[in-house]
Amino acid sequence: MKQETLVKELQKLVGKEKVKGSIDWRLSYAYDGTPTGYKGIPDAVVFPENTEDVAKILSFANENRIPVYPRGAGSGLTGGSAPLQGGIVVSTEKMNRIIEIDEANLAVLTEPGVVTYDLQKEVEKRGLFYPPDPSSYKFSTIGGNIAENAGGPRCVKYGVTKDYVMQLEVVFADGTVANLGSKAVKSVAGYNLKDLIVGSEGTLAFITKAYLKLIPAPEAVRTAMAIFPKVEQAAQAVADMFKVKVIPTACEFLDKNSIVAVENYAKIGLPTHAEGLLIIEVDGYEAIVDELIHRAIDVCKKAGAIEVKIASDPKEREAIWNARRAVSPAIVQLKPKKINEDVVVPRSRIPELIKNVYKIADKYNLMVVNFGHAGDGNIHVNFMYEPHEEDRVKEAVREVFLLTLELEGSVSGEHGIGWMKKEFLPLEVKDALEKMKAVKRALDPNNILNPGKIFDL
Amino acid sequence: MKQETLVKELQKLVGKEKVKGSIDWRLSYAYDGTPTGYKGIPDAVVFPENTEDVAKILSFANENRIPVYPRGAGSGLTGGSAPLQGGIVVSTEKMNRIIEIDEANLAVLTEPGVVTYDLQKEVEKRGLFYPPDPSSYKFSTIGGNIAENAGGPRCVKYGVTKDYVMQLEVVFADGTVANLGSKAVKSVAGYNLKDLIVGSEGTLAFITKAYLKLIPAPEAVRTAMAIFPKVEQAAQAVADMFKVKVIPTACEFLDKNSIVAVENYAKIGLPTHAEGLLIIEVDGYEAIVDELIHRAIDVCKKAGAIEVKIASDPKEREAIWNARRAVSPAIVQLKPKKINEDVVVPRSRIPELIKNVYKIADKYNLMVVNFGHAGDGNIHVNFMYEPHEEDRVKEAVREVFLLTLELEGSVSGEHGIGWMKKEFLPLEVKDALEKMKAVKRALDPNNILNPGKIFDL
Repeated sequence: MKQETLVKELQKLVGKEKVKGSIDWRLSYAYDGTPTGYKGIPDAVVFPENTEDVAKILSFANENRIPVYPRGAGSGLTGGSAPLQGGIVVSTEKMNRIIEIDEANLAVLTEPGVVTYDLQKEVEKRGLFYPPDPSSYKFSTIGGNIAENAGGPRCVKYGVTKDYVMQLEVVFADGTVANLGSKAVKSVAGYNLKDLIVGSEGTLAFITKAYLKLIPAPEAVRTAMAIFPKVEQAAQAVADMFKVKVIPTACEFLDKNSIVAVENYAKIGLPTHAEGLLIIEVDGYEAIVDELIHRAIDVCKKAGAIEVKIASDPKEREAIWNARRAVSPAIVQLKPKKINEDVVVPRSRIPELIKNVYKIADKYNLMVVNFGHAGDGNIHVNFMYEPHEEDRVKEAVREVFLLTLELEGSVSGEHGIGWMKKEFLPLEVKDALEKMKAVKRALDPNNILNPGKIFDL
Repeated sequence: MKQETLVKELQKLVGKEKVKGSIDWRLSYAYDGTPTGYKGIPDAVVFPENTEDVAKILSFANENRIPVYPRGAGSGLTGGSAPLQGGIVVSTEKMNRIIEIDEANLAVLTEPGVVTYDLQKEVEKRGLFYPPDPSSYKFSTIGGNIAENAGGPRCVKYGVTKDYVMQLEVVFADGTVANLGSKAVKSVAGYNLKDLIVGSEGTLAFITKAYLKLIPAPEAVRTAMAIFPKVEQAAQAVADMFKVKVIPTACEFLDKNSIVAVENYAKIGLPTHAEGLLIIEVDGYEAIVDELIHRAIDVCKKAGAIEVKIASDPKEREAIWNARRAVSPAIVQLKPKKINEDVVVPRSRIPELIKNVYKIADKYNLMVVNFGHAGDGNIHVNFMYEPHEEDRVKEAVREVFLLTLELEGSVSGEHGIGWMKKEFLPLEVKDALEKMKAVKRALDPNNILNPGKIFDL
């Protein structure tokens, strides 16, 4: 179908004002958060306002074999929402209402385009808590978080987005509208298609509503920092914390290069010879949080921490977190280019991961910075490089993925596969890949939903 | 294939001693826990000892279009493991090793035939905790629990079986062996087939190994009982508990008829005019459990409880739980037959559910007893009846399901669909049913895995 015809047909379907076909609009929606730039330009950008609009668009696209690229805030890091082969970008920007906060049942019914942070603020007004907190939470949307099964620092205690999705209203590729899951806390009625859709990166269905579980907001929080001469000591502290029955809300790790970068950037007095820094947060009942943070700190001391600090007020808490927040702005000062991979390994394998990542960096003569969510083994491995080093970086990244799999980990903890990591997926999932493809063909036989993502058919 | 030929072929495949073909064996494995008796007799019963055995059996069955019925302990209540049309029962009884308890990563790798209780005891020796606790946990198996996504009283705080399955080794219908999920705490690499298999009642794949998440065992537990004149008051107390930030480990409900039945049976001094009894348990840190149980009890008093009791020692705790445990033996004294449905509704709809179930019972002149997991809205509705009342019971059950769906609930909280509830599934999942069937056809094109369960193709 000609581009102009497509735009006109879509305008007839859902209304002129909801469909944009000019080159400026199309270019603006060719990008997402992936640092590689755009891969393709869509033929049209559509802003549906409700489920019916989405169903009409998908039915039409399915009949005419036109690719559809679901899009939240476009903040993904692996190209999940990037249009690859023309077609239609379908943005959830206009589907941004929180429909109902169901206080009696600790849940919220929302449209997919609501920004995660906005939803959190809204439920917090009622003493409730929506824990998933991807770094992008101030601009990424609930729909995008669900499509990518977003994690975040708090997931070591509270789990990932999937753990909060009770029911989804979705539109399948053929325009079928269905509710998956249940508003009841548990349900075993038929196949769990809900959790299949979560994390499927927009390739199996378009999410139009989500009924999300909330929990009572924790009464209190305590934050501490611990600095270790050796990376093994930091890893040991993480493991031992669980043994004294402390499940931290967050347990963030900075490696030597991160510490140096932050110190050079922010001058906050970090010891630049240290190999590991942990930021530990606990939350829960007022009567217990002090005990918990002390248990955590005792564990750190026993593991060999040379410096520990418990925040005594919100200002000190902010100061501790600022060290973590400074990592990203600090490291981009180091080199003009960066590639950030979010590998994840079983907690106990973190020291092996870090040591060997350094070896790989040495082998390819590259700068590497490691930091991330140590509590759940999810480490962001960042190679910082000059443009001419790109080929070596690619080799190094490949070795990091192989290392991760050797350590029984996963090539993506929270960023997804998108188009960026397609070549590495088969190394991890092996014979399950054909079964994933079979499911894709069953639910989207014409391959219109986000084609070219996760795997090629 | 002739029955004798099938047995011989299977014996050639996996070894003579692992295949039973005599009528006594076949009859013994025709049954499961479903009170309706058997539906069909299998042609052979096979006891594989490892993944390779299972892969051989499934490849063979797939080539020859022979039904395969995966079976754990056969304790299911909806006919999940019942052979319907001849074929092969494949029992996991000989795959009953706990392979490794991974203390550093808080996880256990196990074969599917391990009894849930045995696994719990084993991990508890190391200060670890596997929370899922279906009523059958002393004899049901991990594999069966996963296939049915079993719940239990503790799931209001700790979640269901699904929440503890990190990785599964499965054999698909065509004999493909694959690992689904990850040993890492989080992973977004490809489709979440793991959570699709959990709860699929053996219709999509055969589970051969499970890597399960464990948590640190709670330090302490407190138990209390509260008795309410009105069912609404009990329901209000459940809702209010979350408002004071108490997430009970268990929150069990007995209705008036349950209370009367238990009192007549066990003479423990329960007030038989009361409409609701709650058993509340909290667990966690030693320093906080007393405060939590008092918060819960205060909520009960405010909601109108006429009697509250906190167990002051393990003996009193046992006495409280005995009231709950007495329900099943007590109610079977009431009438010769019983049908137990495990509907689930959003917590706030419990009073409406109970009131209207009584109305339905009145309309059909039947005795009904309601009890169960109030904390997550999962109520076991038991019609007690004489054999000649069977037709009226069927009508009443149908109305209970329709009521449940009107209250935005689910027709099964934890027992599954099996063959027993097939006719009600479409009322709940509506247009998603065709998508479930598409997934089944994609993963098991010859429909050999547990055919006739959940839905007919």
